[in-house]
Amino acid sequence: MQLHQASWPEIEAYLERSKGIVIPIGSTEQHGPNGLLGTDAICPEVIAKHAGDEAGFLVGPTFNVGCAQHHLGFPGTITLRPTTMIAALNDWIESLVRCGFQRIYFLNGHGGNIATIDAAFAESYANWSLDGEACPYRLKQANWFTLPGMMELCRSIFPEGEGSHATASEVSVTYYAYPDAAKDVAMEPKIAPSGGFADAADYRARFPDGRIGSDPSQATAEKGERIVKAAAAKLIEDVEVFFAR
Amino acid sequence: MQLHQASWPEIEAYLERSKGIVIPIGSTEQHGPNGLLGTDAICPEVIAKHAGDEAGFLVGPTFNVGCAQHHLGFPGTITLRPTTMIAALNDWIESLVRCGFQRIYFLNGHGGNIATIDAAFAESYANWSLDGEACPYRLKQANWFTLPGMMELCRSIFPEGEGSHATASEVSVTYYAYPDAAKDVAMEPKIAPSGGFADAADYRARFPDGRIGSDPSQATAEKGERIVKAAAAKLIEDVEVFFAR
Amino acid sequence: MQLHQASWPEIEAYLERSKGIVIPIGSTEQHGPNGLLGTDAICPEVIAKHAGDEAGFLVGPTFNVGCAQHHLGFPGTITLRPTTMIAALNDWIESLVRCGFQRIYFLNGHGGNIATIDAAFAESYANWSLDGEACPYRLKQANWFTLPGMMELCRSIFPEGEGSHATASEVSVTYYAYPDAAKDVAMEPKIAPSGGFADAADYRARFPDGRIGSDPSQATAEKGERIVKAAAAKLIEDVEVFFAR
Amino acid sequence: MQLHQASWPEIEAYLERSKGIVIPIGSTEQHGPNGLLGTDAICPEVIAKHAGDEAGFLVGPTFNVGCAQHHLGFPGTITLRPTTMIAALNDWIESLVRCGFQRIYFLNGHGGNIATIDAAFAESYANWSLDGEACPYRLKQANWFTLPGMMELCRSIFPEGEGSHATASEVSVTYYAYPDAAKDVAMEPKIAPSGGFADAADYRARFPDGRIGSDPSQATAEKGERIVKAAAAKLIEDVEVFFAR
Amino acid sequence: MQLHQASWPEIEAYLERSKGIVIPIGSTEQHGPNGLLGTDAICPEVIAKHAGDEAGFLVGPTFNVGCAQHHLGFPGTITLRPTTMIAALNDWIESLVRCGFQRIYFLNGHGGNIATIDAAFAESYANWSLDGEACPYRLKQANWFTLPGMMELCRSIFPEGEGSHATASEVSVTYYAYPDAAKDVAMEPKIAPSGGFADAADYRARFPDGRIGSDPSQATAEKGERIVKAAAAKLIEDVEVFFAR
Amino acid sequence: MQLHQASWPEIEAYLERSKGIVIPIGSTEQHGPNGLLGTDAICPEVIAKHAGDEAGFLVGPTFNVGCAQHHLGFPGTITLRPTTMIAALNDWIESLVRCGFQRIYFLNGHGGNIATIDAAFAESYANWSLDGEACPYRLKQANWFTLPGMMELCRSIFPEGEGSHATASEVSVTYYAYPDAAKDVAMEPKIAPSGGFADAADYRARFPDGRIGSDPSQATAEKGERIVKAAAAKLIEDVEVFFAR
Repeated sequence: MQLHQASWPEIEAYLERSKGIVIPIGSTEQHGPNGLLGTDAICPEVIAKHAGDEAGFLVGPTFNVGCAQHHLGFPGTITLRPTTMIAALNDWIESLVRCGFQRIYFLNGHGGNIATIDAAFAESYANWSLDGEACPYRLKQANWFTLPGMMELCRSIFPEGEGSHATASEVSVTYYAYPDAAKDVAMEPKIAPSGGFADAADYRARFPDGRIGSDPSQATAEKGERIVKAAAAKLIEDVEVFFAR
Repeated sequence: MQLHQASWPEIEAYLERSKGIVIPIGSTEQHGPNGLLGTDAICPEVIAKHAGDEAGFLVGPTFNVGCAQHHLGFPGTITLRPTTMIAALNDWIESLVRCGFQRIYFLNGHGGNIATIDAAFAESYANWSLDGEACPYRLKQANWFTLPGMMELCRSIFPEGEGSHATASEVSVTYYAYPDAAKDVAMEPKIAPSGGFADAADYRARFPDGRIGSDPSQATAEKGERIVKAAAAKLIEDVEVFFAR
Repeated sequence: MQLHQASWPEIEAYLERSKGIVIPIGSTEQHGPNGLLGTDAICPEVIAKHAGDEAGFLVGPTFNVGCAQHHLGFPGTITLRPTTMIAALNDWIESLVRCGFQRIYFLNGHGGNIATIDAAFAESYANWSLDGEACPYRLKQANWFTLPGMMELCRSIFPEGEGSHATASEVSVTYYAYPDAAKDVAMEPKIAPSGGFADAADYRARFPDGRIGSDPSQATAEKGERIVKAAAAKLIEDVEVFFAR
Repeated sequence: MQLHQASWPEIEAYLERSKGIVIPIGSTEQHGPNGLLGTDAICPEVIAKHAGDEAGFLVGPTFNVGCAQHHLGFPGTITLRPTTMIAALNDWIESLVRCGFQRIYFLNGHGGNIATIDAAFAESYANWSLDGEACPYRLKQANWFTLPGMMELCRSIFPEGEGSHATASEVSVTYYAYPDAAKDVAMEPKIAPSGGFADAADYRARFPDGRIGSDPSQATAEKGERIVKAAAAKLIEDVEVFFAR
Repeated sequence: MQLHQASWPEIEAYLERSKGIVIPIGSTEQHGPNGLLGTDAICPEVIAKHAGDEAGFLVGPTFNVGCAQHHLGFPGTITLRPTTMIAALNDWIESLVRCGFQRIYFLNGHGGNIATIDAAFAESYANWSLDGEACPYRLKQANWFTLPGMMELCRSIFPEGEGSHATASEVSVTYYAYPDAAKDVAMEPKIAPSGGFADAADYRARFPDGRIGSDPSQATAEKGERIVKAAAAKLIEDVEVFFAR
Repeated sequence: MQLHQASWPEIEAYLERSKGIVIPIGSTEQHGPNGLLGTDAICPEVIAKHAGDEAGFLVGPTFNVGCAQHHLGFPGTITLRPTTMIAALNDWIESLVRCGFQRIYFLNGHGGNIATIDAAFAESYANWSLDGEACPYRLKQANWFTLPGMMELCRSIFPEGEGSHATASEVSVTYYAYPDAAKDVAMEPKIAPSGGFADAADYRARFPDGRIGSDPSQATAEKGERIVKAAAAKLIEDVEVFFAR
């Protein structure tokens, strides 16, 4: 069940049986020569939809632009400043709580979001903690790619060149979601360099085509499908535990 | 061409022939007994995609949560505070300008966003005006439902009960986009009351099922298709003028 | 009755018979070769005072600097950023509500303020809507120049060259208010060009002497008086409806 | 010369002979049983106008609502939060600097503003200091009532009951400015209590009719005129030194 | 008793006998050729600790970076923008009030902090005043160097060259606190120039080695000890009055 | 070398041989029945000082209040909101960069700070990335307790009851730093429960005396000394690599 395709009476009925919702959250940023700019938003969106359809939980709209300042050296990237993202996440959270939700699970697709999402949660809880009242809701984030067993699965499918940005796995997931958007691009070098980075200029200097440690030319829709199904199964387990807490 | 399904080298190539982009912008808010919560985001997204595919211009990710405080009396609604939305829009604008875009056209699907988008534009221009430098980019917003001829078309398709919120037209557009999400709900009264409103409590008291002036039970996917095609044609004309300015 | 010339016991007594107040709101910005920089603040101030004196409602201090980034190419212009204006308006609103006012009517003199005032209202209501409580007060804005019949009147007095910035009418109103400040300046061209604009550099390039579409050399204090009296009459009607709501 | 009654070409001409401007800054807050709510804005406005007319310097619009949280226990009081005031003052300053002004002199009428104006100046300078560039403009604030000799003069006119809020002097100045607004109210006790305060509830508990240490029933327009003239003379001296720096 | 060396049960016990706390607040900024960058934080920290140990009141952690934009021309200086400092102080205040403190006394070591601390207090009180509720806590700031009799004492110890920045007294206090950090530097000129300043560039141009009006080569740990003891005694008196209010 | 005990000419000299600085960053929050409220600030401060003295690098003032909303159920805890902390850290960073520092290493003592520090770094870099300029400085954070080998060392010293909050190791470090502050308190239960938490009320309910998983009654100053020396050695290695980058 997807919130944006539901009517308000349907949400009202859902809230009678569950106070939980899953929000896909990602980024719009370069993903190398053959990866989609929307990769980090598409992956959690597809996985959450798959899981929500199967398990009957509600999936909200996708928070599709996140913290991507380091990718601004590549055109098509859009970023929020962390403080803007904290403000926006808190408005989403306040709205959902106002509607009656008490368990909000953010399924994240972008490593660069993790810290800011955590800071946003602390900002939200701080209002209650400073007021001296018990906060009636709980917030959780999890990356689809670190759900139990997922890193192992992805590395078993791509023993070489899974990488850490523009990974073979995430590109596969997007090709499964949008087969027509698959791009056939030769990688040079075959496997991209690895390492850390600071700002956008630094990133582009270290990783000239945008990839980190990956060979996403191995990506296929079929592999993506396998990943989506595995991740959705793990997500269902994790969500059920969280909603029941 | 959709940004989130393109790679960065494809955007780089696009920027060589155009500096313009269209951003669908909407809201996630109740749309009456049979309307989708995502209506205001879905409509500009579908119309912009249709037009972009036909005319070859780039469509960015959808800004899918806007200013909807007055709908918070109905579950499923999510809002940004206007100041949060101004901050987020300015981060999107700065990012796109950083990438090389110089004409950013927001295709809007929600009347409640108009003022805040305008304020966000003034906030953006003010930085240049206060610095005493000429701003190198231009910003524009237009509602899909007020593009030339659109109000006339919608009212000719729905001579009674087009309304002003949860309109028969916008519900039709979403049914065309997501036929499986169409809902068969009897309206009572047939045509909803009309009028103004202040906060969420006031809105819910005046418009108990969320509609204003409309009978969206007339909505069909076929009518939605007709509206999408007409709006896309008008959008292409408007975008071309704006990009050429 | 003007708040800034009243004592607090007089306001306390007023609040026993009315919970309504009118706040003139304008801008400090260039108004062409013979227009006053304070025009947009002076006009609503004079009209509101005239109406308040006649009808007995309370007029607050004038919010005299608004959103005028596009006029910064001409010396003497002062602007607030839209986000600053939203913060300031909310502090005014919270203060007035704290004092007991429940109907706050902003009489606006500047088109460039409209969007930001609306955004400020939504910001104010959002606090209540997100909290799930009914907001006990109501906010309204109206431009003096779009009160019922005013545009027709102004265009009948100035059939040619009323224009849309530094209009013949608004300059007339200020000459009525401050006869000694009237300036005799020849206009070249007689009627200024019309059109849209973005930032300050763009504005100054398109409208070299600051006027848009107007010939304010026709302005006289006598015409201004006629306009003030007509606007005040219409304001009284509108305020009475709003206060009684 | 008053900015709001001047045209932009007149300001352009003024800037050729001076880069300095005086901004009256006050508050809208209770001033006891017979004092005007606008007292703290009216006093610097009248004195600055008097001095500017005599000495030929430019007087800008009045910043008429300041930091008055402690007076909110009395109806008619309007306050800005200090952070809002800092933002607004910085927008004013940036605008004036953009126009070409390099010496901005705030003539203050309200003790409660002093700290926040100073903080706003530091906020403005900090941008330059952190950037490592020399700030090209200078900011100054002075209270009309602490200009050289003014406290002595006021206390000589009112040897008893000058006080420190709703002073006999400031009420006199407003009666000179608006003779029709003079109010005849008996004071009980004759001289109000003195002391410190924290928030609005604390203030109202300590100073039940709003006055601190004063007997403003002694106020007359004639005494006000004397004070205005003396203050204007001192202001001219101080402004000339500041503009010449 | 120092909060950062206490456990929470010790604070819980303290709160049963007192609701008061003293927070040393300073700055990290240049203090001339032989003064420590931490001078303005060290002085109130040492004095508060001395007094707290003697009188048994609680001393909190030191707020060690303040408003020092004007010193940024000298390396080692760190500043907060005033608005950042207001936000941080309000978070400290809210936290302490949440813990049960009702009297918070800031012992300040830096003249440049005074205005911003006052503005922060007004920001804190404004929330209560706008809500119409009585604020249950009280805030106070005092400079150690303006406690009763302190200026006289310092000037009696240093009849010439006490000065107003990098004073002989404050350098003495830091030498008493950290004898190993004492520096033997000849001053040229013997006594530094005096005057006002604006931004960092202006400050450095007027006061090339950072001192204002002082000859801190006279500083000794022994004199520092005398000053600390005198200030601590005065602080105890002032704190006791404040806590008892 | 410690910045707050140095003079500006000493920092100027230091900057000729190094552009790097280490900033201890911690929190002021409950640390169980026998732990100091300042633990998380004291630990990195002591370790950084020890390392800086040995290796000759500069240590700045301690950022001593961080993100601790979850500890507000225990008196003595002080927190910043994450957005306040981001603002404050950016002011520190801007100041240090203005002074000439290009490598800023934050030695962290509090797990709850990690996300917000990362967000603050992204906020800082974003300004450069959005401007399209290469950022000239680099930022790094590391926890003293996760420096290479430290967790192993701490667990070897405390095979049982090291825990994750109010750990035996961190309490030992503070007892080494302030032997007089050591507290002899029996723990009940011997080893505290483990698990996650949300806001302050949730934390206090799950961890009634504040500890998580630890038995800090094992803490001694001697063990603390051993930990400090080991951590300082590892810090020196890590800092040298970072400064040389």
